[in-house]
Amino acid sequence: MLNETHAPDLKCWLASAAPGGDFPIQNLPFGVFRPAGGSQPMRGGIAIGDMILDLAAASALGLFDGLAAEGAALAARPELNDFMAAGRDRWSALRLAVSRLLRVGAPQAEAVRACLRPQAQAEYGLPCRIGDYTDFFTSYDHMINSGRVFRPDAPPLPNFKWMPIGYHGRASSVEVSGARLRRPSGQLPPGEGGRPEFGPSRRMDYEMELGVFVGPGNARGTAIALDAAPEHLFGVCLLNDWSARDIQAWEALPLGPFLAKNFLTTISPWIVTFEALAPFRSALPRTADDPEALPYLRPADGALAGYDIELEVALATRAGGGAAQRLSRSSYRHAYWGPAQLLAHHTRNGCNLRPGDLLGSGTQSGPGPAEQGCLLELSRGGREPVRLSNGERRAFLEDGDTVVMRGWCERPGFARIGFGECRGTLLAAGDA
Amino acid sequence: MLNETHAPDLKCWLASAAPGGDFPIQNLPFGVFRPAGGSQPMRGGIAIGDMILDLAAASALGLFDGLAAEGAALAARPELNDFMAAGRDRWSALRLAVSRLLRVGAPQAEAVRACLRPQAQAEYGLPCRIGDYTDFFTSYDHMINSGRVFRPDAPPLPNFKWMPIGYHGRASSVEVSGARLRRPSGQLPPGEGGRPEFGPSRRMDYEMELGVFVGPGNARGTAIALDAAPEHLFGVCLLNDWSARDIQAWEALPLGPFLAKNFLTTISPWIVTFEALAPFRSALPRTADDPEALPYLRPADGALAGYDIELEVALATRAGGGAAQRLSRSSYRHAYWGPAQLLAHHTRNGCNLRPGDLLGSGTQSGPGPAEQGCLLELSRGGREPVRLSNGERRAFLEDGDTVVMRGWCERPGFARIGFGECRGTLLAAGDA
Repeated sequence: MLNETHAPDLKCWLASAAPGGDFPIQNLPFGVFRPAGGSQPMRGGIAIGDMILDLAAASALGLFDGLAAEGAALAARPELNDFMAAGRDRWSALRLAVSRLLRVGAPQAEAVRACLRPQAQAEYGLPCRIGDYTDFFTSYDHMINSGRVFRPDAPPLPNFKWMPIGYHGRASSVEVSGARLRRPSGQLPPGEGGRPEFGPSRRMDYEMELGVFVGPGNARGTAIALDAAPEHLFGVCLLNDWSARDIQAWEALPLGPFLAKNFLTTISPWIVTFEALAPFRSALPRTADDPEALPYLRPADGALAGYDIELEVALATRAGGGAAQRLSRSSYRHAYWGPAQLLAHHTRNGCNLRPGDLLGSGTQSGPGPAEQGCLLELSRGGREPVRLSNGERRAFLEDGDTVVMRGWCERPGFARIGFGECRGTLLAAGDA
Repeated sequence: MLNETHAPDLKCWLASAAPGGDFPIQNLPFGVFRPAGGSQPMRGGIAIGDMILDLAAASALGLFDGLAAEGAALAARPELNDFMAAGRDRWSALRLAVSRLLRVGAPQAEAVRACLRPQAQAEYGLPCRIGDYTDFFTSYDHMINSGRVFRPDAPPLPNFKWMPIGYHGRASSVEVSGARLRRPSGQLPPGEGGRPEFGPSRRMDYEMELGVFVGPGNARGTAIALDAAPEHLFGVCLLNDWSARDIQAWEALPLGPFLAKNFLTTISPWIVTFEALAPFRSALPRTADDPEALPYLRPADGALAGYDIELEVALATRAGGGAAQRLSRSSYRHAYWGPAQLLAHHTRNGCNLRPGDLLGSGTQSGPGPAEQGCLLELSRGGREPVRLSNGERRAFLEDGDTVVMRGWCERPGFARIGFGECRGTLLAAGDA
């Protein structure tokens, strides 16, 4: 799984790609952007340091050949779907070629430098056309904590350790980091009289998740076996599944969340590839009491089916003057089900996944005291507001709050890689 | 709302469009097809009698002008999304122009006749690219009957009469009538030991629904008001929401149905426009005990917010030699919530709908004894198998069963119009 692109001593000739940042030469995440100047079309690129390698420009200079050239032509498009469909050989060939072009001593360094665009001036687009967005429920601690909000002795869900529970979300309202969000209105749970109220949600929340992008996918009526899943796992982004807890409480029985979540989902602009994440694979958390998974969900003995990805949510409040104060911090290594299991389960009944489909990990919470991935858990359903470092308190989000998600991977002997950020500000309710 | 295209005495010069069939001159539904000969590209058309008007051919002959010509150019494409986005003026102008071209005495009749292709030789495609598919739960009787399967004294859901309960379905697996379906496999509810079984579903069911196609849609952060909904309602098809009840029972708590339904949804090839349905509007069923709807869901006094559309499901079994035997029969007039309310609710929180999005009505059951829209209800959860007219019994679907849905509208003083059929055969389980 590891190759020369993962070597920790690789150095890039671009100073801002120095070790310790989100985008060193070992990362090379894909995204779609418009360079400075609003009239230019969107195109695909790769983040390096504080710059973006414009793949269309690099292709035009003839910097790639073979499979890498084929990959670059597809990854340069304004939607990465065709690149995602092209499969692991082309993903990997392009990664290797870009890694070599960016290394200290690369003879083409000056030509490549002419293809770099500053991130600070870029406008990002959705990385691909998302045909379907599925959200899962993979954090055991999130399940336990959320259940206890409503009932202190809530038992675990009986199906949780047998399957990655999932549901379909809204594809039309997945947008890239920075999208505006007005506080949504809707039906709020009834009080004594049984009549629901109507108005802006009073229990707005974030959910700290990862998003997984599907590669080639499968035809309807076929399944992706667990051991074939790596061929279909393109990469990972940060994902904020904004949620209105009061709307959710009233609408979600019996068919699940709907208007409580479909008003917006934001994702980070950069997709970190599973190849870049290879050094950070981890064992799934299992205890002796856990049931043995059914065969279609059972990884080979010793397989590292999880990923150790640190996640953090910070809040920048109006009163706090924009300084971000950490709220949630956990790791994806706590997830009970890993990405390959999501694919295997989703397709086991013959459901077809298409290139660019998005799978949310569900809120990531860990077992520790500050490891809850949303305010519902942190504030115990609003009963125990969280104290921010500037003295403010939050049971749920307030107008003007900016939620900033970050993620990164660190492991001794490997270069740190990061996801950038996924950011959004809650505005006051409008007419809609 | 009514205009010259609805006049019951209009007659078409095509003999097969005689009154009494599904596709008289008063109907004029839209679809996408490939004429006889597999190599020709898909294109848009309008059903008339047993033929299809090829809109690309008719446009090329210069048979339309003005808004109708603009509409025809869009409706001739292999996906109707741009026509759906073009709005009611163009939908209506094209309908009127086609109605006039097809009337007895139309001077262009011979030119139009050259643009007709036989339905019997056509291959149908999905009428549009479906960005998101949402399914609703609008039949009160379906809610009561389904609840009683699990608990004889099950109370009504407290939110049912306050909102059209909805959830997101799978867009990738919506296919046109005739799609093949292998019996899906999955996790089946655990017995005594608490360990789920794995295997082909034993409780396969159909759901008799209508599908509503969205027209122009709305930007994220805005809502479609109830009285603006007609501008956004393009048309209606038949929809079979195939369901695996055992998979559903085990997976659906707490996030709703997922693998129990996302393996396939079939729709009829023809979209009957809301303009064609105008004579069949009906009052929503309400009793004095029902709560007054919240303002955003409250139609004007006397508004006819429902539609009287007869629905029927027949089963053709292997043993029955292909003869269809009626199982379910009901009408959409029993739905508690009408199409405009689905749009108003769906967007009230700012969720954006896109042209070509599909909204399912949910299973349509009525209050009468044989008016249940799925086998789960008809067989009371499998406990009381239904006896078919040839003596066979069905608790759930068996391999080789062909489900045939039909729909039509009849009202004294108006021409009968029909939906054609939505058909699918359940095959034995395969590997996926």
